[in-house]
Amino acid sequence: MNDFTYYSPTKFVFGREVADRIGPEMAAAGFGKVMVVYGGGSAERSGLLARVRSSLEQAGIAFVEKGGVRPNPEVNWVRDAIALARAEGVEGLLAVGGGSVIDASKATAFGIPYEGDVWDFFAKKQPIESCLPIAVVLTIPAAGSEASGSCVISNDAENLKLGVAGDVFRPKLAIMDPTLTFTLPAYQTAAGVTDMIAHVCERYFSGVGAVPVTDNIAAAIICALLEAGPRALEQTDDYDARATIMWSGMLAHNDLAGCGRSLNPTARAGGWESHGLEHELSAHYPEIAHGAGLAVIMPAWMRYVWRSDPERFLLFASDVFGIEPAFEECESTEEAIEDAVTAAIDELQAFFQSLGMPKTLGDFGLTPDDVDALIDTLRLSKGEAFGAFQKLTMDDARAIYLSAF
Amino acid sequence: MNDFTYYSPTKFVFGREVADRIGPEMAAAGFGKVMVVYGGGSAERSGLLARVRSSLEQAGIAFVEKGGVRPNPEVNWVRDAIALARAEGVEGLLAVGGGSVIDASKATAFGIPYEGDVWDFFAKKQPIESCLPIAVVLTIPAAGSEASGSCVISNDAENLKLGVAGDVFRPKLAIMDPTLTFTLPAYQTAAGVTDMIAHVCERYFSGVGAVPVTDNIAAAIICALLEAGPRALEQTDDYDARATIMWSGMLAHNDLAGCGRSLNPTARAGGWESHGLEHELSAHYPEIAHGAGLAVIMPAWMRYVWRSDPERFLLFASDVFGIEPAFEECESTEEAIEDAVTAAIDELQAFFQSLGMPKTLGDFGLTPDDVDALIDTLRLSKGEAFGAFQKLTMDDARAIYLSAF
Repeated sequence: MNDFTYYSPTKFVFGREVADRIGPEMAAAGFGKVMVVYGGGSAERSGLLARVRSSLEQAGIAFVEKGGVRPNPEVNWVRDAIALARAEGVEGLLAVGGGSVIDASKATAFGIPYEGDVWDFFAKKQPIESCLPIAVVLTIPAAGSEASGSCVISNDAENLKLGVAGDVFRPKLAIMDPTLTFTLPAYQTAAGVTDMIAHVCERYFSGVGAVPVTDNIAAAIICALLEAGPRALEQTDDYDARATIMWSGMLAHNDLAGCGRSLNPTARAGGWESHGLEHELSAHYPEIAHGAGLAVIMPAWMRYVWRSDPERFLLFASDVFGIEPAFEECESTEEAIEDAVTAAIDELQAFFQSLGMPKTLGDFGLTPDDVDALIDTLRLSKGEAFGAFQKLTMDDARAIYLSAF
Repeated sequence: MNDFTYYSPTKFVFGREVADRIGPEMAAAGFGKVMVVYGGGSAERSGLLARVRSSLEQAGIAFVEKGGVRPNPEVNWVRDAIALARAEGVEGLLAVGGGSVIDASKATAFGIPYEGDVWDFFAKKQPIESCLPIAVVLTIPAAGSEASGSCVISNDAENLKLGVAGDVFRPKLAIMDPTLTFTLPAYQTAAGVTDMIAHVCERYFSGVGAVPVTDNIAAAIICALLEAGPRALEQTDDYDARATIMWSGMLAHNDLAGCGRSLNPTARAGGWESHGLEHELSAHYPEIAHGAGLAVIMPAWMRYVWRSDPERFLLFASDVFGIEPAFEECESTEEAIEDAVTAAIDELQAFFQSLGMPKTLGDFGLTPDDVDALIDTLRLSKGEAFGAFQKLTMDDARAIYLSAF
């Protein structure tokens, strides 16, 4: 087990109709005037924003509002929000939404106390040292941003989508009401489940050997999602399935599933190769849902790299899918291992497809000719090589993209 | 999944030799003058206290010291510590030790700002609303007190051992250095592992149906302990085994393994029947290690109550021990279920014994005549009935104690 720090200080209030408790919970946590951040019109149409406003008013929490966060939130929205928050004397953020809304809120929350341009943090010109407190009412379980030290923002002008990491902007409070997700479109539910499984896998395949308790927990989370995902699609108001997905999505990304798996004790475990490859996709094609991109990229990445550590993939095959190598039935040990690993990757990809996720980059309308442009911006964000499980050069990245057609 | 709140705000610094980082980590966390609390002489003899002092001095953290915390810490020690801390203007606590030292530190930390007697909290005359910040250098993994909202204190004058629960006294910082546990006596290691498994089981058998992700995590933790426990006993400086035990002990009791399993959303999951029965043992016989008591009591409790919810025990049998009911080979469904459940309880008890834990109350030198005195004080602390998986009357409690001979 490698050395690590683990810090997940968010208070979680989880259950039926807890959205109505946002006001008193924020008051108890000491929040002052907040900016309520949301995305498109769904939070308004569903009545959720009205409930949030009412709860805040009853608890005596002053607020201003800023909506319009798009999927793959853009830095110019964040700049506008920072200006508004400063003008209004905002002391904290309340994100009402999913990963995009939360990430936009996080960037606003650490952008406000910083004198320079907020993109400096994403361009790694500046470490993030200060941040206003953040609360969340989660509506889309997927990104795990309600507890993570992650924030990803797009910059359209530069064709970039970059992330930052840090404990200072982990939310203080997360209100998690699975009933809010009954009305999520199937595609979004499926993309969310895919993203969660990817968050666990990025840490699981981190280039570090077995860490039994963490590996067991990783399998525990993935297995719960394999079971709950299809149930939530079959019956959209299955509370237990929705609750399992919502809670698993948090656990998948608050770093619990990475403890002892990091090469650097103060950094997140894993090389995040699939996320790196996928982020270029959704930076270039904002209509591609992050989870849908991962459903294509992650299996392609796995098929490309598994030979770097077959033992790791065999453990995954066994603990997640109950697949063992059939040494007796194969001509060689190598063949048995390859069969088992391939079967596990096939199962994972088939699961994503069973949820309605795409299988190839062609399903998004891309052609192999589009890959060069992805590599150009990948090089800008990652340099000539990246990854922890297996170092990927730009040629490797190109080969993975091409293998996904 | 039942409604719940989950809040585990402790920052964990985990790894080789991290004990030397206590000073800078406390400074970074904003600690002022602290009282360093420890137990017997082992922290001094091992050189750990010297390392802690040196690290605090280098980081500019002022401190006073108070040692002498005994196993099953006593309220009079806490009263003395509170008086000393007030006289010295202490602003925080640093516990250097295991569960007893941490619990004594917690009681001191929430006793200091309270004007009345600290036992009022344990007698439930007063809710705990305020607490000085607490840091921990963990030396004995067992109680999980380094992150839990638990604190158990004995009162010799009243022959009582009572616990309180609350988020306000969860430690802010826990330094977890598995190398400190290389020299733990085998018995203490074994009692610790037993206590951890019991912490998971108390939540698992909480009277609530399946909560897949939480149940998976519970099995993940127990299975890691089943594997690491014997390894740590076989080779005392097996770092990975020690690290697995230390981290699992925290996870077993920071409430992660209870999420969605509570009947009351703001209370800990489970009825804590085995702990309730065991606490009487170690209150009457302070020489009985808590974990050793649990190794005897928990299987006896399981055998007495499993028929209240056989399905729950079958899931446990399957997920933890891979035991399935052999419906084809048995004369009746009932027999197959009973065989499987009994086999799982047998396996658990055999595991405790394999670690060197006792099997019966007779192993502690007790006789059935001693049970009445246990029931008398159990009634004082629990009333006429207690428990969540199955309500236990005092007659049930007596039957469980007697079955453990």
